[in-house]
Amino acid sequence: MPSPTRPEISRCRKMVEESLLRFLERDVCSMPEVLREAVEYSLTAGGKRIRPVVLLLAGGAVGGNEEELLPFACAVEYVHTYSLIHDDLPSMDDDDFRRGKPSSHKAFGEATAILAGDALLTEAFRVMGESPLAAKEPGKALAAVAALARAAGAEGMVGGQQMDLSAEGTGGRGHEKEEIDLRKTSALLSASARMGGILGGGSAVQVEALARYGRALGLLFQATDDILDETGSFEEMGKGVAKDRARGKLTFPAAFGMEAALARAEALCGEALSALSHFGDEGGHLRDMVRVVASRRS
Amino acid sequence: MPSPTRPEISRCRKMVEESLLRFLERDVCSMPEVLREAVEYSLTAGGKRIRPVVLLLAGGAVGGNEEELLPFACAVEYVHTYSLIHDDLPSMDDDDFRRGKPSSHKAFGEATAILAGDALLTEAFRVMGESPLAAKEPGKALAAVAALARAAGAEGMVGGQQMDLSAEGTGGRGHEKEEIDLRKTSALLSASARMGGILGGGSAVQVEALARYGRALGLLFQATDDILDETGSFEEMGKGVAKDRARGKLTFPAAFGMEAALARAEALCGEALSALSHFGDEGGHLRDMVRVVASRRS
Repeated sequence: MPSPTRPEISRCRKMVEESLLRFLERDVCSMPEVLREAVEYSLTAGGKRIRPVVLLLAGGAVGGNEEELLPFACAVEYVHTYSLIHDDLPSMDDDDFRRGKPSSHKAFGEATAILAGDALLTEAFRVMGESPLAAKEPGKALAAVAALARAAGAEGMVGGQQMDLSAEGTGGRGHEKEEIDLRKTSALLSASARMGGILGGGSAVQVEALARYGRALGLLFQATDDILDETGSFEEMGKGVAKDRARGKLTFPAAFGMEAALARAEALCGEALSALSHFGDEGGHLRDMVRVVASRRS
Repeated sequence: MPSPTRPEISRCRKMVEESLLRFLERDVCSMPEVLREAVEYSLTAGGKRIRPVVLLLAGGAVGGNEEELLPFACAVEYVHTYSLIHDDLPSMDDDDFRRGKPSSHKAFGEATAILAGDALLTEAFRVMGESPLAAKEPGKALAAVAALARAAGAEGMVGGQQMDLSAEGTGGRGHEKEEIDLRKTSALLSASARMGGILGGGSAVQVEALARYGRALGLLFQATDDILDETGSFEEMGKGVAKDRARGKLTFPAAFGMEAALARAEALCGEALSALSHFGDEGGHLRDMVRVVASRRS
């Protein structure tokens, strides 16, 4: 049964969906048509939009203006989308499909897929830098830029993908797996929550609490992913596992068993919720997001 | 005979060389070792460092503080270096060598090369966002971030690479060639000069003049490249031409003949110098850079 606050998550998701292409329109960013096709193909391929929604909800929790936060929310989704395109490449995870559609390099060729990823990553920073909030509050906008870059870069997401590739076939070392999850998944989710807090005008204490929330939510997201992979209850998920297993990718359930994995997911729920203890009712939607992630079926 | 002002260019280049790794050191950016190796390999592979030097000289021409400009100069070189790594990939220009050394994917494999490029692009924005000038003058720093992102992104460098790939084998259409040069080479050089102007505290008129200067300098750079390719007087250059020709890449001399190409280079020199007419002696080093680029032999 959907909780009474979930409509807010749906509303935010819809707003993101409707805005993703807006900041790349021809009049603000002229680009070769094939590149535009590739960029739009991946941006409109669906997805849960968890990162931008978390940014909007975190910003809302500290009283931010939604319209001002929106370019930053889209920027975060551009960065996430670029990472999926590059991760799918033949030399990386070599995935021919993404969300039921041919992956970018299958649809447009490798060169254009690499460039579409490069473009999305770069445009994320342009959109933030050219946003109305950047003109009004450059200090906050710049702090958000730095937070996103740190989370997405060599220390965060890119570093995590490198570790994941290097770890392939080395078996299920749990410690390394958590380090990879922290970099690959948590860093960007934590940055999304942090950015919402910064841009929404939250106090330093609130911003740190939101970052902790995002960190736990990211680990929870990955934990439920691994559990879904392992239980393989869905056909597509099943395929994912088979592939991950064939590659020797680390998953927590594989390393420590399903019971431990479920207990860990439970603990991460608690961690995410307790990070929100500073917040009263205004943290309600963020709490709801924890439940959405914990109970997801795909 | 070196002109009397060239030591300034050498001094700036040396300063850039000595600072490139500083903003990526372990204590500011922890990354997996193989990724660090790949990033450092490409950053220290040499090169003329024209973009960061132009940024420093442009900033100096409007009275900027060199130490404050340095992180931005390095950021521009990170972006340039990432573009070389990705352009060399098998699915792009498929170059096994870069500056006499194996290209990144030859040395580290394709996946790590892609990630090293991704990391450099992302870290460029982190370094700018976390710079001391960003804390002091966030508005200026953010304008520089936006300028770099616009120049590097879908409208600029990434779009140019896509056009270049799409144009391969279609013959020597001059108009398209200039469009590609503007995006692939001029955009980033123009942004470098613009960023120096913004960050150094130049007036709007000065900043636009510097951007025009960089635009012309970029076209001049590409024009001399094409001429060097065509004359093929150097062994490695010769190889480059053979490869470019085999691919059907556009060059201006191939399309319009050598005489027209030399006349165009001359005109671009004039354009770059005339953009500096607002500047007196303080534009001397920038003028000198035009001569350096025009007379380069490699």
